[in-house]
Amino acid sequence: MALRGNLVVGQSGGPTAVINNSLVGIIHEAMQHAEIDGIYGMMHGITGIINEQLIDLRRESAATLEGLRNTPASALGTIRYKVSEKDYERIVEVLSAYNIRTFCYIGGNDSADTTHKVAQAAERAGYELCAIAVPKTVDNDLAVTDHCPGYGSAARFVATAIRATGFDTRSMGESGPIKLMEIMGRNAGWLAASAVLAREEPDDPPHLIYVPERRVSISQIVADVKACLDRHGYCVAALSEGLVDENGDPLGAAGREEVKDAFGHVRKGGVVETIEAAIQSDLKMTARYDKPNYLQRSMAELMSPVDREEAYEVGRAAVRAAVAGQNDVMITLVREPGPEYRCGTGIAPLHQVANVEHMLPPEYTNDAGNGVTAAFVEYARPLIGGPLAPYARLALHPVPKRQA
Amino acid sequence: MALRGNLVVGQSGGPTAVINNSLVGIIHEAMQHAEIDGIYGMMHGITGIINEQLIDLRRESAATLEGLRNTPASALGTIRYKVSEKDYERIVEVLSAYNIRTFCYIGGNDSADTTHKVAQAAERAGYELCAIAVPKTVDNDLAVTDHCPGYGSAARFVATAIRATGFDTRSMGESGPIKLMEIMGRNAGWLAASAVLAREEPDDPPHLIYVPERRVSISQIVADVKACLDRHGYCVAALSEGLVDENGDPLGAAGREEVKDAFGHVRKGGVVETIEAAIQSDLKMTARYDKPNYLQRSMAELMSPVDREEAYEVGRAAVRAAVAGQNDVMITLVREPGPEYRCGTGIAPLHQVANVEHMLPPEYTNDAGNGVTAAFVEYARPLIGGPLAPYARLALHPVPKRQA
Repeated sequence: MALRGNLVVGQSGGPTAVINNSLVGIIHEAMQHAEIDGIYGMMHGITGIINEQLIDLRRESAATLEGLRNTPASALGTIRYKVSEKDYERIVEVLSAYNIRTFCYIGGNDSADTTHKVAQAAERAGYELCAIAVPKTVDNDLAVTDHCPGYGSAARFVATAIRATGFDTRSMGESGPIKLMEIMGRNAGWLAASAVLAREEPDDPPHLIYVPERRVSISQIVADVKACLDRHGYCVAALSEGLVDENGDPLGAAGREEVKDAFGHVRKGGVVETIEAAIQSDLKMTARYDKPNYLQRSMAELMSPVDREEAYEVGRAAVRAAVAGQNDVMITLVREPGPEYRCGTGIAPLHQVANVEHMLPPEYTNDAGNGVTAAFVEYARPLIGGPLAPYARLALHPVPKRQA
Repeated sequence: MALRGNLVVGQSGGPTAVINNSLVGIIHEAMQHAEIDGIYGMMHGITGIINEQLIDLRRESAATLEGLRNTPASALGTIRYKVSEKDYERIVEVLSAYNIRTFCYIGGNDSADTTHKVAQAAERAGYELCAIAVPKTVDNDLAVTDHCPGYGSAARFVATAIRATGFDTRSMGESGPIKLMEIMGRNAGWLAASAVLAREEPDDPPHLIYVPERRVSISQIVADVKACLDRHGYCVAALSEGLVDENGDPLGAAGREEVKDAFGHVRKGGVVETIEAAIQSDLKMTARYDKPNYLQRSMAELMSPVDREEAYEVGRAAVRAAVAGQNDVMITLVREPGPEYRCGTGIAPLHQVANVEHMLPPEYTNDAGNGVTAAFVEYARPLIGGPLAPYARLALHPVPKRQA
């Protein structure tokens, strides 16, 4: 059983459309447990502990908490910060000074690693603590969990965006038949793959999907675009920002500039500009592109209702795990077998999750490396929370020609 | 009074989220008038006449038409095509062969010009025709009309996107405090200006708005960003794709490449990359950016309900004008005086509209050239159709420090 004491929660890494649902789930659940006194928030993730910038979440109104469930980004602020060994000592000192016994950290791989190390530092110091990681990432690249809260909403945005820009592109006819969309995903193609969920009829966009798990040359993409134009008269392609070429090098020009974040991750980008230039050069055609970038993770108006609920439930499960005495674990989503989609929560030791990247498995991409399989659609479809809002299409009955 | 005969409708230029509402408005109204026999659609705008690719819109189901009211892009297909003098003779031949007496063309400046010339060509040929232009453009740059159908929905998208990415940027703190968004608008800043509608509290994003009507140097933008960071700790800027520098040259790199469309308009772009590089160089900071591009005009999920209705009504008004014998005119939106927003339709001669660009007037931009005025907000606010979906913010009550 958990010690009586205070709880702290933080948000880390890139925000999502539903990350505040996990925060609110934690607060709501914590309020149900007599063992938990103060419910504190750390400002800007772990730096809020290090700098003692804590806020009192019990003083927030019920209406604010409910409103946060439809509010994107990290309400507590977030951070990308590589915690040093010295920082971990400081963190345990602060936790101890505030009698914090439950540490909930909402984030991705790096945040799971931070939580793992906080647990280890507390153990070394002989400080009793329940450190629980709460999964979050639009990249969907965490191990063990079936999927990650945040992914379903980003996937719904991507599918909605591809369908909208696809209708636009088709209607342009010969005035603009090529559309590229660059989609988030540092190394994993889960989000780019989700573009397939825009497809309602077999010939619908996206016609081509490229993911980092499948190396591809620029010339192959251009050849695929050409073949698609010949077949459909237009071409809509979804390309991951993290694409790598046949040599394993970043395909996008911006990737080559090696802009790195605090964790040494290269900031990717420039894929669509690279392909646009190749199409201009090889096909003598203009390609248009969309780079929705941060809108993929922040446009709460298009959040998946399934994702929203799951993000809330992993927050609640984290507090229940802590109250049950769990430590050094991450909450997972566990899909139940059966024809209907159901998902519960589980628990995984953090050493199985921290710094592990879960990539799109081979059975989810097609042989040509330019699309995804029915198995992927089956996996991903339930996560976006129901069909997209219906679009209509004219039947287009021709008027008999009068040979003017 | 109009002659008894057939009606044809086409869509031209860039699609919008609500352009199909004008199409459906035309069909619904045409069905009410005994003078109108066939209701035809031209495929891909005027080329559908030239190539005799007409479809029978009376055979579309009521459900399809209703569904089109929530479907973006041009359901009949669209085109960017500069009509030649010889084409106009051909067009009148085809109109005559199909006994088309009402010609409705939904589009922007170039389409108004095409409609004007069709009217003139018919007159030269002694062919009785009612040629009516129906306004459409996300750029909002048509003369005479108070605003253009399509603009309100694009503005709602832009405001929603700036608010979402603004919340995201604020939450990133020092890990990513600069966000630029590139916004459509070839020469007119109406759409970039609409970013202001994201602002709910005085210090909210967008902190800076740049429009093509106000020349600005790269160094001035960088200085503005720096001042904004010093004041707010983060900076969200909305930049028109059509920005021009202090010499009147395109500010974006891609603009300098002079990619031109069939009308000789330079395709703009590259503004945010240019400013990103300048920030990197001068401030030694990384700027992030979003380029939602074609999503601004196609994401029907975020359409303005006001815009949706007005697009429908200008379609209906076009048919009524034709039935009343009007020719060589464009339907306009006429804002009624008074504290509450009301808008009716009017009629303007096409020579007043064709090829005229209506720019953001000086009283709508601030003295510094990096923002818009309250007068603009008053003008634009009603067009997006009510407030954005509410986002919540934590009150952030600090926990007293315990000096760990």
